[in-house]
Amino acid sequence: MASSDTSRVPDAGSGQIRQTLPVKAGAGAYDILIGAGLLDAPASWAGLPESAHGVIVTNEVVGPLLASRLMRGLAGRHARLSVLELPDGEAHKDWATLNRIFDHLIQQGCDRRTVLYALGGGVVGDITGFAAGCYMRGVPFVQVPTTLLAQVDSSVGGKTAINHALGKNMIGLFNQPLRVVCDLDVLHTLPEREFAAGLAEVVKYGPIADAAFLEWIEAHAHALRQRDPEAIAHAVRRSCEIKAQVVGADERENGLREILNFGHTFGHAIETATGFGTWLHGEAVACGMGLASALSARIGLVGVDVERRLAALLASFGLPMRPPQLPPQTWLELMRRDKKAHAGLIRFVVLEEVGRAAVRPVADELVIDVIRAAA
Amino acid sequence: MASSDTSRVPDAGSGQIRQTLPVKAGAGAYDILIGAGLLDAPASWAGLPESAHGVIVTNEVVGPLLASRLMRGLAGRHARLSVLELPDGEAHKDWATLNRIFDHLIQQGCDRRTVLYALGGGVVGDITGFAAGCYMRGVPFVQVPTTLLAQVDSSVGGKTAINHALGKNMIGLFNQPLRVVCDLDVLHTLPEREFAAGLAEVVKYGPIADAAFLEWIEAHAHALRQRDPEAIAHAVRRSCEIKAQVVGADERENGLREILNFGHTFGHAIETATGFGTWLHGEAVACGMGLASALSARIGLVGVDVERRLAALLASFGLPMRPPQLPPQTWLELMRRDKKAHAGLIRFVVLEEVGRAAVRPVADELVIDVIRAAA
Repeated sequence: MASSDTSRVPDAGSGQIRQTLPVKAGAGAYDILIGAGLLDAPASWAGLPESAHGVIVTNEVVGPLLASRLMRGLAGRHARLSVLELPDGEAHKDWATLNRIFDHLIQQGCDRRTVLYALGGGVVGDITGFAAGCYMRGVPFVQVPTTLLAQVDSSVGGKTAINHALGKNMIGLFNQPLRVVCDLDVLHTLPEREFAAGLAEVVKYGPIADAAFLEWIEAHAHALRQRDPEAIAHAVRRSCEIKAQVVGADERENGLREILNFGHTFGHAIETATGFGTWLHGEAVACGMGLASALSARIGLVGVDVERRLAALLASFGLPMRPPQLPPQTWLELMRRDKKAHAGLIRFVVLEEVGRAAVRPVADELVIDVIRAAA
Repeated sequence: MASSDTSRVPDAGSGQIRQTLPVKAGAGAYDILIGAGLLDAPASWAGLPESAHGVIVTNEVVGPLLASRLMRGLAGRHARLSVLELPDGEAHKDWATLNRIFDHLIQQGCDRRTVLYALGGGVVGDITGFAAGCYMRGVPFVQVPTTLLAQVDSSVGGKTAINHALGKNMIGLFNQPLRVVCDLDVLHTLPEREFAAGLAEVVKYGPIADAAFLEWIEAHAHALRQRDPEAIAHAVRRSCEIKAQVVGADERENGLREILNFGHTFGHAIETATGFGTWLHGEAVACGMGLASALSARIGLVGVDVERRLAALLASFGLPMRPPQLPPQTWLELMRRDKKAHAGLIRFVVLEEVGRAAVRPVADELVIDVIRAAA
């Protein structure tokens, strides 16, 4: 991947340094802001539409902690600014919760110029982005990710969705936000398990796109676990850069973008089979990356050393590497529903070397072999 | 409006003449085919993607009549072609029905290349277009409108939606089809009431965009009521031309396109207040056009002769011109939810002269006056 094209911009409001990272998406473009103390800094929101209605969509855990800070940052931008708290968790990323957003918007008299702010993790971001894409056939929205996973992955790139009982993220849209605002301060209060799940998606960018970044993560694994601010800032920035480059080259996942799903074909099957929310998304992806590395080795693309190296790093973050016990047919059936599948063939993101990934169809027997070996 | 840019293309399959009308929509473009005998003619479908899965989405009334003809036309194009029959009627244009489409697509193992065919009236077209926009974040679809209203209005322009209990078409997308195929033969079996409702949307194009077309409709009102094939063909063609021109200039309803909603602000309020399906959409729009004309006269833009002329024409088609009895506050509240509203002001499409429309905010008192006078 090409190197960084971020720029350092002094934040007029607080005197702090923040990073601005541009993302190209289809015909449009938007910025990712990364820095400390962004939530309540008016400069983070400058230039966004100042329409009559603003709605902060959050959840019952994040809202009480952070909504008031965001409201301070947005002060004066909307004549009416309301907060909607959704239930927390992947199990609620469904139509019923989506409809609560629509109810709120209609009851508040929100029109087509209303701006939605998605304040929360991946679930809040996914469901709010989908709601924004559909309410009155589309209103603008801003991603304000408050988990590591959302900052480095789900808030960037415009994928939005809800789950269907029969498959994860089956119903959704490509819908780009006006801006992504990553306040690094909020990561310090994340529960241990959620922080580790976020690190899984950080690790992902190494094997698929940047061998040097993987080495950096390995060298700074302790600092990352300790949430060292410098280490976190670099991890978020480099992850967003890689994601922005991949997405900029392929907004609608016709090719290159699929590599971002490394570990996700297995991971989504784990999430669906165990019930949304039992495994955190990042945990399922970590386990899935282990399986996908093993699959890459099994079909002779990389050595088993690559598989072992990744598994060791992920396990050192406390991530679960052992897949759940499921009958082989269940695995195959769940994975055949993957959105990368074409005409029944299961396609996997595999590693061709450390730092380079590709998508390949793989025979069912090999897949089952690999799952058996890991169980 | 500029005149026609249609072209006559001999249909290789049947020797019949069909019209091809190009529509420009954002970065893309697609064709409307208009003619007799198109459903089962393979030439109508040539050039569309021949992916593994095709799904005909229809309803329990249209399906038994026409699905087999469409299946003949599509023969050989998809390895698996299935038919999904939804319940009939505007009352079912909701999430529950939308979810039946998703259930079917997942159960059939439909992937991202699956093509959906919306075979039916406006409800089937709206809900199928929305489903296509969301399933796996978007699969291609084709509009196959089988009512006059859908052929002249709802199938063209890429607006898709479902209703929310609190407002019509509140949840939806701009999602353009790959093609629109208008088979004129199917109009001959439409129930009287539905055919008349379609004529309301044909009439609409005269006052908002083409005074000569309004005169033509008046001169051919008898032929249209009798469903004379030549008269219907011209009405469908000219309506689609005007709609395509307006939509081509403003895909996402930022300005010009709003004029297509002439009569719809009142009409949607009628539909919501009386329960979706009690009034047919075209009936509510007819009554709404009467009210919008009266409003145009009331604020001094046109004479009362225009209001009377339109009301006479619409009434001659058997369309209801008397609004339902609702308290003034109910009218205002329902209309304030209109998607054209900005910051609480109700905006109406009004006539500046016959053949030219504009959007204006109107004071509540004047609106209530006009409704009272018509009741």
